[in-house]
Amino acid sequence: MSRVSSRRRRRRRGATDIPVARPSTRRNIPAYELLDEASLVSLEQHAEWLLTEIGVEIRGDAEALRLFKEAGVSVDGERLRFDPGHVRALCSTAPKNYTMHARDPQRNIEFGGDNLILGPAYGSPFVTDLKNGRRYGTVEDFQNFIKLTYMTPLLQHQSGTICEPVDVAVNKRHLDMVYAHLRYSDKPFMGSVTAPERAEDSLAMARIVFGEAFMQEHLVIQGNINVNSPLVYDDTMTAALRTYAAANQGNVISSFILGGAMSPVTPAALIAQAHAEVMVGIALTQLVRKGAPVVYGSFLTTMDLKTGAPTFGTPESSLTTMAISQLCRRLGLPFRCGGHLTASKVADAQAMQESVDTMNPAIMAGANFIFQSAGWLEGGLTIGYEKFVMDLDHCGAILRMTQGLTIDANELAADAYLEAGIGSNFLGVAHTLRNYRTANYRAELADTNSFEQWSEDGRKNTEQRAYERWNQMLSEYLPPEIDPAIDEALLEFIARKKASMADAWY
Amino acid sequence: MSRVSSRRRRRRRGATDIPVARPSTRRNIPAYELLDEASLVSLEQHAEWLLTEIGVEIRGDAEALRLFKEAGVSVDGERLRFDPGHVRALCSTAPKNYTMHARDPQRNIEFGGDNLILGPAYGSPFVTDLKNGRRYGTVEDFQNFIKLTYMTPLLQHQSGTICEPVDVAVNKRHLDMVYAHLRYSDKPFMGSVTAPERAEDSLAMARIVFGEAFMQEHLVIQGNINVNSPLVYDDTMTAALRTYAAANQGNVISSFILGGAMSPVTPAALIAQAHAEVMVGIALTQLVRKGAPVVYGSFLTTMDLKTGAPTFGTPESSLTTMAISQLCRRLGLPFRCGGHLTASKVADAQAMQESVDTMNPAIMAGANFIFQSAGWLEGGLTIGYEKFVMDLDHCGAILRMTQGLTIDANELAADAYLEAGIGSNFLGVAHTLRNYRTANYRAELADTNSFEQWSEDGRKNTEQRAYERWNQMLSEYLPPEIDPAIDEALLEFIARKKASMADAWY
Repeated sequence: MSRVSSRRRRRRRGATDIPVARPSTRRNIPAYELLDEASLVSLEQHAEWLLTEIGVEIRGDAEALRLFKEAGVSVDGERLRFDPGHVRALCSTAPKNYTMHARDPQRNIEFGGDNLILGPAYGSPFVTDLKNGRRYGTVEDFQNFIKLTYMTPLLQHQSGTICEPVDVAVNKRHLDMVYAHLRYSDKPFMGSVTAPERAEDSLAMARIVFGEAFMQEHLVIQGNINVNSPLVYDDTMTAALRTYAAANQGNVISSFILGGAMSPVTPAALIAQAHAEVMVGIALTQLVRKGAPVVYGSFLTTMDLKTGAPTFGTPESSLTTMAISQLCRRLGLPFRCGGHLTASKVADAQAMQESVDTMNPAIMAGANFIFQSAGWLEGGLTIGYEKFVMDLDHCGAILRMTQGLTIDANELAADAYLEAGIGSNFLGVAHTLRNYRTANYRAELADTNSFEQWSEDGRKNTEQRAYERWNQMLSEYLPPEIDPAIDEALLEFIARKKASMADAWY
Repeated sequence: MSRVSSRRRRRRRGATDIPVARPSTRRNIPAYELLDEASLVSLEQHAEWLLTEIGVEIRGDAEALRLFKEAGVSVDGERLRFDPGHVRALCSTAPKNYTMHARDPQRNIEFGGDNLILGPAYGSPFVTDLKNGRRYGTVEDFQNFIKLTYMTPLLQHQSGTICEPVDVAVNKRHLDMVYAHLRYSDKPFMGSVTAPERAEDSLAMARIVFGEAFMQEHLVIQGNINVNSPLVYDDTMTAALRTYAAANQGNVISSFILGGAMSPVTPAALIAQAHAEVMVGIALTQLVRKGAPVVYGSFLTTMDLKTGAPTFGTPESSLTTMAISQLCRRLGLPFRCGGHLTASKVADAQAMQESVDTMNPAIMAGANFIFQSAGWLEGGLTIGYEKFVMDLDHCGAILRMTQGLTIDANELAADAYLEAGIGSNFLGVAHTLRNYRTANYRAELADTNSFEQWSEDGRKNTEQRAYERWNQMLSEYLPPEIDPAIDEALLEFIARKKASMADAWY
């Protein structure tokens, strides 16, 4: 196929045209090292102190307790206490780098090392857009966000519960979500973790698409596991974790901590605690199945100490993210953090200030996996359509940033100076004509026009331009192909499952 | 004076209450090292190649050419060509660290080393606010921005031409601007550079306040010098530069380059060119007066290669800022870069995204001096009142960020865990009560309330909250004290100068 027709086809499918090609997701810039060796050792020692002297509880999950006991951990009721270095040793069998397989193999992704994977928001009960305002999410919203994720090369992972489809019963909505992930897009994604049987359903649907034998050896689906900080894992989370790990599938294990509430108010304590907590979850995956793929996650932020409200993109959250990334690097595991996070209710100046201030430190910290990268508003309670496409622009900027600089003869452009001389511009020189097409990343929504042109165009702010952008994208969506027999099998599975139980709303 | 009455007094003077105390401007985090040694050496060698093979022109300034010729530089007409290493050697007498003195000695600032100094925007002909919209700046606007700068501890430098007072003749407005700097605030500032006699006037007014003898030995005023890239200095700039340097006062010398226009389109060339250009200006200050204080500046950004419009906060601008900071560090000079820059016409999502994406890399790069930190809109054509106070919030976040983390026993909070145990929150423990007051930086404008509370409060976006904020600040402004005799002398000087010439509007 000629290059032109390939580009036309891509455009017909509605992919954004910035950049047309799939961007590199391989980092080519060093990670920032905030803390020195002595500080890192202090944090690691304090994490060990927490694991030895205070311990961690796993509540309501006898099987998890049994696994730890069998591994020689001291179990007192539901409280685990670890000898110094033991949890770290248990984590050592987790793989450092691995591939996650997509329905379209061209969209496979790599975890760990220098790789950077971005995915959309996760978990909002509400959705909002400029025309209809804020309301509960529906299956249609969920599908819309999957479609938008499919259409952009700037997100390589679909995340999981992008928004809650509140129009479907709680015990059945995971079926519609996993179906949307598999049918309306073809990138890697996360399954349900709200109950072990829903994790099993997610795995069963993945098996219809990928086959059981393939999934014994290859990662295709992950569970998103949060610690119930401070120092507690609940059975819902550990049971889901065990379900995915037993199937040799993935887990992303994160402490979601608001400093001052779920940890002491001082950042050092929060970092050490999160490190201890996450290592325990990673250890559990390895006790279930040595070598099961896992991501070390961190979701550490602050709160307004006057009101107790969660705050995002704060200097303290930046610093804790940078510091814990160093602890993760010393374990050698794939690192998840960041996102475009904000407490703002609307996609305004606050929203993007806080979002960029959450994302940039994550990038500097050397993050490997950043979901929550598109759509977040209101502390995660809402996902916004306009915010989603604004965030996409910034995802593109990040992916360009992480490519770093090339210092070579072409980039140094001696010929441009020999041609242009002194005091005249470089717009027409051969070097510029040779390089300008690939020179700069171009954001879609940024208005860089003159004031006069911008006025003539209706004086639209970013939010208004974003409204037009996502509507245009959705109007151009065409679904990826799927084998009709597989689609039928998925729909049949869902119908059978839905028929087998009454609606439950908890 | 008791602590309470001191706080009351501060509040009466209208200072923001975030943070109440003057924040530390001493960096306590390492600078980011983007490029490796080999890449840095390549850039330095290319800068030397430019200085040797292409050269730099100084146009219309015979005295500057004479100084370079006397120093052994090859001068061909207005073209200078330097032996490899010569410019660098000429720069070596510039001081690495120095104090800049403020009218209020408590507001003296330090340049170089680990110090970080923030100042407001510089140079906009237009101003805008939410009520009156965009219009030409006036003396009243200029005074307003000086007042706002005075009131916040988050800006430690007043910058210079914050906005152009377009209601005053071009040949007289510098008098009103310097007066406003000296009368309505008491922090360090920059004088006029638009003509040598205006630089002389700026120095003369500073001498009325500081005394001639003091200024022979102490820095109190700076000129903001831009290269006319590529590779040209105009006589207006070099004459102003010589005027300040001869008086042992300061210069901030920057290449303002849009890659692809005033430099080749590739970042490596832009970095090497800017390095060469700025070193020539620094060398000139030292030829005028060895040891004259100078700042190495960089203002490197991109343009939209489809339209030619300047673009800000782009990934390429972040990378070039980080790289050139390393070259400056190798010279050991104070480094200026960054700001809260944006092409947006309004203080919306784009504005803060681009602003944070210009500021964060500057901070990571180890900047010492960042003016353009508050108010920028529309590529610098406009300064916005709402944007100004939004940026202040982010200045506070930056200053907290650069304090880094402390890892010690109090921060690790072992006692908090021993008190709280597992699974309960830390809100009420002794450690939290001991630390919460100083724990987190608190932005003024960020809305972190619930959706319901935010709705009840009128569903205001950041811009609307910012409008209220700056109006409140201005309504609370009280001027710093000034010796009436000095004030009279300043006013007399201005009156005499104004009477001595007809209005000129160019």
